[in-house]
Amino acid sequence: MTTTITPLSRDLQNELQEEINFKTKPIGALGSLEKIAMQIGLIQNTTTPVLSKPTIMVFAGDHGIATTGKVSPYPQEVTQQMVFNFLQGGAAINVFCKQNNILLNIVDAGVNADFEAHPQLTNAKIAKGTQDYSTAKAMTSEQCQEALEKGRQLVRKVYSEGCNVIGFGEMGISNTSSAALLMSYFTNTPIENCVGRGTGVDDKGLQTKIETLRKVYNLHIDAISTPMEALTAFGGFEIVMMCGAMLEAASLKMTLLIDGFIVTAALLAAHAMESDILDYCIFCHNSGEQGHQKMLEFLNAEPLLNLGLRLGEGTGCAVAFPIIQSSVNFLNEMATFKSANVSEA
Amino acid sequence: MTTTITPLSRDLQNELQEEINFKTKPIGALGSLEKIAMQIGLIQNTTTPVLSKPTIMVFAGDHGIATTGKVSPYPQEVTQQMVFNFLQGGAAINVFCKQNNILLNIVDAGVNADFEAHPQLTNAKIAKGTQDYSTAKAMTSEQCQEALEKGRQLVRKVYSEGCNVIGFGEMGISNTSSAALLMSYFTNTPIENCVGRGTGVDDKGLQTKIETLRKVYNLHIDAISTPMEALTAFGGFEIVMMCGAMLEAASLKMTLLIDGFIVTAALLAAHAMESDILDYCIFCHNSGEQGHQKMLEFLNAEPLLNLGLRLGEGTGCAVAFPIIQSSVNFLNEMATFKSANVSEA
Repeated sequence: MTTTITPLSRDLQNELQEEINFKTKPIGALGSLEKIAMQIGLIQNTTTPVLSKPTIMVFAGDHGIATTGKVSPYPQEVTQQMVFNFLQGGAAINVFCKQNNILLNIVDAGVNADFEAHPQLTNAKIAKGTQDYSTAKAMTSEQCQEALEKGRQLVRKVYSEGCNVIGFGEMGISNTSSAALLMSYFTNTPIENCVGRGTGVDDKGLQTKIETLRKVYNLHIDAISTPMEALTAFGGFEIVMMCGAMLEAASLKMTLLIDGFIVTAALLAAHAMESDILDYCIFCHNSGEQGHQKMLEFLNAEPLLNLGLRLGEGTGCAVAFPIIQSSVNFLNEMATFKSANVSEA
Repeated sequence: MTTTITPLSRDLQNELQEEINFKTKPIGALGSLEKIAMQIGLIQNTTTPVLSKPTIMVFAGDHGIATTGKVSPYPQEVTQQMVFNFLQGGAAINVFCKQNNILLNIVDAGVNADFEAHPQLTNAKIAKGTQDYSTAKAMTSEQCQEALEKGRQLVRKVYSEGCNVIGFGEMGISNTSSAALLMSYFTNTPIENCVGRGTGVDDKGLQTKIETLRKVYNLHIDAISTPMEALTAFGGFEIVMMCGAMLEAASLKMTLLIDGFIVTAALLAAHAMESDILDYCIFCHNSGEQGHQKMLEFLNAEPLLNLGLRLGEGTGCAVAFPIIQSSVNFLNEMATFKSANVSEA
């Protein structure tokens, strides 16, 4: 069932560069937009790429550690409350997706609640939250495998419906902690440099969070030697499912829109499994969360926006999307020096 | 006829901050979007601001210095060719305005050509290009006054038609030179730190451009003691008309979208006349043109985007617009913790 990611074909690189250079503008004058046009052209292997049925999937899950009160000032219930908010259309991601004509799918990867059926909600629940990883692995290896595969299935479904560009978002109280643990493992960075304030952690809370996660890291590290084992130990379900979704999306040669700290943690795991995935990723923004900048440096990634967003939900993808659309549009719609009878230098 | 700019009323600041803080997100988590929502709320003096009939005005003009070949590798004819390109819909600004539902007005402030009537073109021509400022002032003081007033009139017209947010763009071969001279004067920066490559200037060309502009600066500086005199000496018509348009837009409490190097040079002049204009300005991007960053620092301005754009035409405004719209939308459309029954920290 598992497909693999092929590195980007560079066959059209010269042709695309000529198309970009002959537009009525100085060479390179559209900056990052030119790089993105090139990337999407290569991904789709065409000089006339199209962004079709753009979709953001928000993966939601709960974390056992949240019930200890050691890593977040918000109660675990906020995860399910925010899922309701997504389904009622009141969250930031709803507003930005509506504005920019992006389809929004909410995925229950493991929220500690039962939801009624809703057209925007996919029930892919692995369990009602992970185990508290301060005493046990976050999940079993079977659960980890199941989450990866469900993520792949979800992407195959939207792909079969015509989507070729997918953004990733998440919701899960305490999931910055999982992300920090994964970052520490995959980038070989001391945990204190990976831990940030997440949502609303104050100075004292930050120290407690660091101490807590250092113990967690030390508890599990000796048993981890593969990306799967890291995901199993640190969770959460929404991160693992996202990782599977990312791997499948790149296998299908979709364009992947990468959001902030937690989404990039999922990508770190996917990258450790198949490094060619980066060819298919657009890094939408540089999060205000401490650690995200370092993740981006590790991946040698240049983020498109730097707006101080630190909300998650995929909001960075949704806000950046019009700029990505602009990149494709200039390539398809601008006149050339020749067609417009404009003199060159 | 001249109206004046009033500083922003802060009456609603606390109320707006509460509205922003009670949305279902951690405090401050939408970063720059929150600052822009606040600014536009204060400009419109409401907690429910609306962006109405967004418009970009592209001011085009020719420069006498262009015919000397000392400051740009492109022939002067490119200005008129690009105006045709704008009217035919083939330029980058056309593509981005169409994508983002922005009205596009092209203003002939002083192009060295005659154009047939076109619904998107406004004839506000002062003359067919400025004088070569290496031997004379770019324009007479009467022409400068006329350009300022025409800029004001153009803005009054779009305002009367319902526009409350206006972006500024420009086209004019050699106008980075005028912008560099104005920058040097208004920010008291040595000319060599103001001069950049403009459109396609190479290393040798850059040295010639610097030497040429140093002589121009020295020729005129002793006769300049007001912003008007600086505009008169250095031009061009499109920059002066834009300056008038900006002053009027801020007087009318519109939101001003500031593009790159040349547009910001016009703003430096407007700011020297009425410093409160900055309250009404959103700085859309940090241009790839050397000097723009220093201009922004001088104005204590934080640009929204940093995409390496260096095209002019108002493209930075057009590309940034969806993010500005997102700022207003989250304020108007997001649920509050209370309305969505989400627990706070």
